Formats: sequence, structure tokens, C-alpha cells
Amino acid sequence: MTAAFAQAKPGPRVPMPRMHAFARQVMQAAGAPQDRAGLIADVLVEADARGVFSHGITRLTPYTDEIRTGLVVPAAEVLPLRERPATAALDAQGAPGAVSAQAAMTRAIELAHAGGVGVVSVRNGRHFGPAAHWALQAVDAGCIAFVTSSGGGASGVLAYGSRAPALTNGPIAWAIPAGRRHPVVADMAVGFSALGKVRVAAATGQAIPADVGVDADGAPTTDPAQLVWLNPFAGPKGFGLGIVMETLAGIIAGATPAVNRGPEHPGVVGQVFAVVHIEAFRPLADVAADVDRTIDAIHALRPAEGFQRVLVPGEPEWLNRAQAQAHGIGYPRGLLDAVAHTAAQYGVAPVWDA
Amino acid sequence: MTAAFAQAKPGPRVPMPRMHAFARQVMQAAGAPQDRAGLIADVLVEADARGVFSHGITRLTPYTDEIRTGLVVPAAEVLPLRERPATAALDAQGAPGAVSAQAAMTRAIELAHAGGVGVVSVRNGRHFGPAAHWALQAVDAGCIAFVTSSGGGASGVLAYGSRAPALTNGPIAWAIPAGRRHPVVADMAVGFSALGKVRVAAATGQAIPADVGVDADGAPTTDPAQLVWLNPFAGPKGFGLGIVMETLAGIIAGATPAVNRGPEHPGVVGQVFAVVHIEAFRPLADVAADVDRTIDAIHALRPAEGFQRVLVPGEPEWLNRAQAQAHGIGYPRGLLDAVAHTAAQYGVAPVWDA
Repeated sequence: MTAAFAQAKPGPRVPMPRMHAFARQVMQAAGAPQDRAGLIADVLVEADARGVFSHGITRLTPYTDEIRTGLVVPAAEVLPLRERPATAALDAQGAPGAVSAQAAMTRAIELAHAGGVGVVSVRNGRHFGPAAHWALQAVDAGCIAFVTSSGGGASGVLAYGSRAPALTNGPIAWAIPAGRRHPVVADMAVGFSALGKVRVAAATGQAIPADVGVDADGAPTTDPAQLVWLNPFAGPKGFGLGIVMETLAGIIAGATPAVNRGPEHPGVVGQVFAVVHIEAFRPLADVAADVDRTIDAIHALRPAEGFQRVLVPGEPEWLNRAQAQAHGIGYPRGLLDAVAHTAAQYGVAPVWDA
Repeated sequence: MTAAFAQAKPGPRVPMPRMHAFARQVMQAAGAPQDRAGLIADVLVEADARGVFSHGITRLTPYTDEIRTGLVVPAAEVLPLRERPATAALDAQGAPGAVSAQAAMTRAIELAHAGGVGVVSVRNGRHFGPAAHWALQAVDAGCIAFVTSSGGGASGVLAYGSRAPALTNGPIAWAIPAGRRHPVVADMAVGFSALGKVRVAAATGQAIPADVGVDADGAPTTDPAQLVWLNPFAGPKGFGLGIVMETLAGIIAGATPAVNRGPEHPGVVGQVFAVVHIEAFRPLADVAADVDRTIDAIHALRPAEGFQRVLVPGEPEWLNRAQAQAHGIGYPRGLLDAVAHTAAQYGVAPVWDA
């Protein structure tokens, strides 16, 4: 049921502001304007603080590589393509993903405040970090948000009933405001498990469950070193949602769906940001109180064997974030080695003890 | 991976128009105005034609019971509560679910055509049949639709990591237009499996996988007769999406979320209909051609062991429907017995051989 089959060992703890300054310096040295470098650092450090290391500071290596190869154009302008009273289609022109995501989410919130709902698409987008990062901005504006993106690489998630992949491991993210409680955040990839967890299992010599994915011949495997493609989560359900996300982010936004891409697809993605203003339906205070009541009722449920508490979606990440704010971000051992190497190329020294 | 662990034996074949007339007559005899009875019959017969028997003609028994007990008010007017440029909140006042769903979807499509996107909520709703039925109306209007509903009963789907339920087994449904191909339809419940399949397994003496659900003590069980609550699909992912659906349909629309209900909750549900006009983002013909290309690429994938072809989400139901149109709806044996009994109470004779 859970994909928590591989855990890494603890490494250094780094205060969030120190890591932010480091990330900003690296991005600036790689060519990003100062305000954009700061925006990217926000996203990466928040991801790590929440324990979403796959979308955190380690991304500095591909992000700086992508500027060098020209895939990401650090100062590119984000252009409006089509506007309707409640929608907008943007062309990111290869700007850093955080830049176009910020433009799109800001516009979607404006539209939702004006008309009750706003939907904004981005074409020619690049990797924007955790989808939840953007969805949470809508929560701060009294809204519910839904965010999706196509993945940047070739497809790596199987169609249900296939031996070959049809989907990128893209996100489905929702965020919902609460009152006294933290917002509810459901942010998941379409794949059975994050590929990063499979890599950790391979590195530490652990077997993986047979339903995680398949080998090069499309046969189920328990050997993480042999796994090349992931199953969608929950079989036909995850595949169904995956095709919808590929269509929204890949086709509607104006990118290429994964299954129609060649193996050398260069990281060009589409994204969709949908925002609903709660006050268009009910008073925000009433909704926030109802969400709190729901959270309290979930907390009061008797836990299953092996669980100490029943948590609300997004709660593990809020708990991680509180720890990171109080004690610094606790990185898994070895995770930052490649980033230190990248930073050195841009003349930036690491801000942690290796 | 798949939940197809129980199959029923084939029973009678009934032409769709004959079944439609039967369903309309029963609903009229139970007190529904003629046009509303016809609308309800549309939904139930389409569900059966697609093989979604859990939401088809067998619902005549609860639907007529609910009119008799006063839960459903057959002639109730659907009222607007709040309007914004791109949204509407409706109060169904206990009208049949198909009636308020039709009003909501019609309005959502109008809003999407006017402003690019429309979101309509329904409070005081009742069971509206398969969510995909409504989503497909948007497809016919050149739109993508997302539809959800809270379930009518007490909660029956576990929180991830709990021994007690937190969610109703409500739907998540999306429909997307294609060109030459049938629309893509992803319509799934939040639970690991339909409870109806567990009941079939119990009736036929088959065991069920241990991850389907739990017994009254919250322990996993392979005995379908002992199963009382379902797991969410894909553990934390299905629970995350389930909480979002409960919040949209239960809280935003203005109903009570499952986890906050008492055990005798009377079938009052909330619903949300979101419609995006494709032309607000790209020309419909371009999107339809891209969706066709994606479908063709999925069909070309090499099937996994045990699969003859790789199908697109919604395709099994389109194949069922073509069979039903050509040869009549093929009902599982015994499925219609209770409906015949219900119809007899309203003086309507069955239109099939038992």
C-alpha cells in the first residue's frame, strides 16, 4: 500500500536561510537575474524543508546545466497567448519553471477573485519544483487550487496493461485552506512510487515490491537495479488520471504528450493552474471551520497496525517543515555531494559540513 | 493491481429503448414528472449499456424508495444560491440527482462557453448516477469536464493508516474530447474496489485480496463476508484525492463531509461540475487530433502478460455500449430480480425474461 520501502541515512542539518542564500548565489552565478534566482531558491528550499528532496536543492545541478545548454532561458519573458474572461494561456518561452509558474498562479488567483474561478495554462514551460508549492499560494488567497504538469523527460510510467511506458511521472496537486489547522495538501505523482526511492533501494541493496514496476522486457521485477519503468498507481485508476494530466498539461497547454515523444525529449513541459475562490460558493470562515472539523475527525480515528496516528494529506510535510524551521533542514547523507560539485563550478562554496 | 476479482454469470439481454421505457414508467408511477422520469431513465439505461451496473436500472429500487420516504422530492425546483461571472452555487432542494446534475452541467457549459471555464456546485443533491454521464455532456460541447460528488451513505472508505472509515466511496470523473476516437473518460471511485464486487465475491464464495479492505475490527481480511470498510486506492494517494473530493463536494458545495456524519446520514450529497472550454486555450480541432494521436500511440503499446490489447481509459465502457446498442444490454444473471419486484409494486411489468 505504501511505497516507503527504502530510507536513506541522516546527513547534515542546514538552516533554511543559509541554504536559500546558497541556492540563490548558484543560480545567479549560472546566469539567472537576482529576483528570479531568489524565486527559484524559495521553491527549492521550501521543497527540502518539507522533505520533498527530489524537488529541492539537488535540482541546482540540472537547473544550471539546462541554462548552459540553452534549454532554460533565464531572462525569457512570459507572454500571454490567449485571454478569456476567466482563463489565460501563457507562453513561458523557456523561462525558468518557477518564473512562469509564479506568473501563471498570480494570474489564476486574480481571475478567481474577479470571476470565481481562473484557469491558466503554460506552454514551453520548464521544471517548476513541487506542484504543491504553487497550489499553496492560492490557499493564502482564500482559494482552492489544482495544479498539474507534464514531466520533462521521455515517458517512464506504463499504461495499465502495457509493457512499455505511456506517461511521464507528472504531478496531481490540490491544496485546500483550513482555519486553525494547516492547509490540506494532496500532491502526488502518477507513478506507483518515486523513481528516486527505487534508486535508493538499488544503492542500498534492498528488494522492491513486484508491483512497483517492470524490467526492460516489461516483466515485473523485485530488483531495483533492473527496474526501468514504473506502474501507474492503482492500475487503471492511476493510468486514467495520468492520461487526463497529460492531456491537460501536454495537449491543452500546448506541449507534446509523453507517449508521442521521442526518447530525447528535451524537458519542454506544459502546466495547468486552476484556482477556485471559496467565497464564490460559501463564506471562507465557514469552509475553514468545516475543514478543521474534518481534520479533527480524521485525527480522532483509531490508527491501523503499524501507524501511531492518522494524518491528513500534507501533514507529514508540515511536520517536516516545522522541524526544518526549528533545527535546520535534515538532509539524507550523500544527497548534497553532487550539488557541492555543481556549486564549485560556479565558484560557490557549500554552506554545510560534508 | 486490478480489482476484477469477481465476475457474475450472464443473464438476459434487453434492448436499450425497451429498458428506457420501463425505467421511465416506474419513475413516473413513483411520482416523477414525465420529463424528469425520462431524464432519470436516460442516466440508468446509459449506465447499464456501458456495463456500469452498479449505477444502472437496479437503482430504481432505492430511487423509488427515496421518493416514498420523502428524501427525494420529485418535482422540487433547483434554485440558484450565489452567482459569480464564472461560477454558480445551486440548491437542489432534494430534487432527483439527475435533475440537479442536468441543471448544473448545462449552466457550467454556458459559463465555460462565455468565459473559458465554469464551475457549478449543488447542495442538497441526491444520487446522480455515473459522474461520467454528466462529464460527457461537456465533451459534446467542446469542453473538458471534471465532476465529483460526495457519496450518500455513512463513510465506508478508510483513511490511510486508520481502522475506521473517513470517506464515502465518491467519484472522481474526467472526460476529454477526441476526434475520430471516442472521448477519453476516467471515472473512478475513491475506494480500492467497488463494494458491489465484494458482494459478488461473497455471494459466489470467492476470496478477495487482503488489500481490498478490513473487517469490523479494522484488520485486513480476505473473506468478503467479513469486509466492512474499503481501503482507499493506492493508500495515501487515494486518501489524499478522497479528502479533496469530500471537501469540494461536501464542504464547498455545502453538504456534510463523510467523516463528520452520523451513521444514519440520509443520502444528502454535494456535487461539483467544472467545465473548461478547449477553444479558450487551443483550437478544438488541433486538440482533438492530438488526443487521437495519443490514443493511437497507447493502442500501439505492447500488452503486458494477461492483456490482449492496451486500452484507453473509458474504452471498455465504449465497447460495452456498442455491444448493447447492437444486441441489447447483457445483464448479469439475477441482477434484475429486485428491480422486477420494485416495478411490480408500481404496477409495471418487467420487459425481460427472468
